[in-house]
Amino acid sequence: MFKAVVTVMLKKSVLDPQGAAVERALKSMGHSGIGSVRIGKSIEILLDGRDEAEAEARVGDWADQLLANPVMETYAVAVEKLK
Amino acid sequence: MFKAVVTVMLKKSVLDPQGAAVERALKSMGHSGIGSVRIGKSIEILLDGRDEAEAEARVGDWADQLLANPVMETYAVAVEKLK
Repeated sequence: MFKAVVTVMLKKSVLDPQGAAVERALKSMGHSGIGSVRIGKSIEILLDGRDEAEAEARVGDWADQLLANPVMETYAVAVEKLK
Repeated sequence: MFKAVVTVMLKKSVLDPQGAAVERALKSMGHSGIGSVRIGKSIEILLDGRDEAEAEARVGDWADQLLANPVMETYAVAVEKLK
C-alpha cells in the first residue's frame, strides 16, 4: 500500500483570491514579515502498486485526467510506501 | 526568506464528500487498486524569519488562529529555507 500526495496549485501567473484574502487577514491581525500566500489542494490517495515508481506514474496519469486543470494549475506528486 | 507549507486535512472521523467524489470518479474511469481519497488544503506562505524553528513556530500560531478549524481539521507545517 502506498500513500500518494498530489499538491495542486494555481500557476504563478493566475490570480489567487483565496490566498490574497488570507494574506490580508494575517496582516490585519498584526503579523509581519509575510511575503505572499497561495492556497491549493492537497489530495491524499491510498493505493496498491508494485513499487513507488509505478504508483507515482499511475497517480500522475490521474492528475492529468482528473485532479488538476492543466490550463490554470500545476501539480506535484509525492509517493511513500506505508508499512 | 522561508517557504512554509501548511497542509490542512479534515480529521479522519469527518466525512470528506469531495474526496469521496474523486474516489468514485477515478473508479468509474476504470482505475483500480484505490484505497481512499481525501482532499485538503495546501497553503504556501513566503515569510521572513530568523531560522527554520522560529518560522515554523510563527506559522503554527497562524494555523491555530486562522488557517485551520480545530474542530474538524488537523494541520502539519513544513518549512524550508529559500536560497
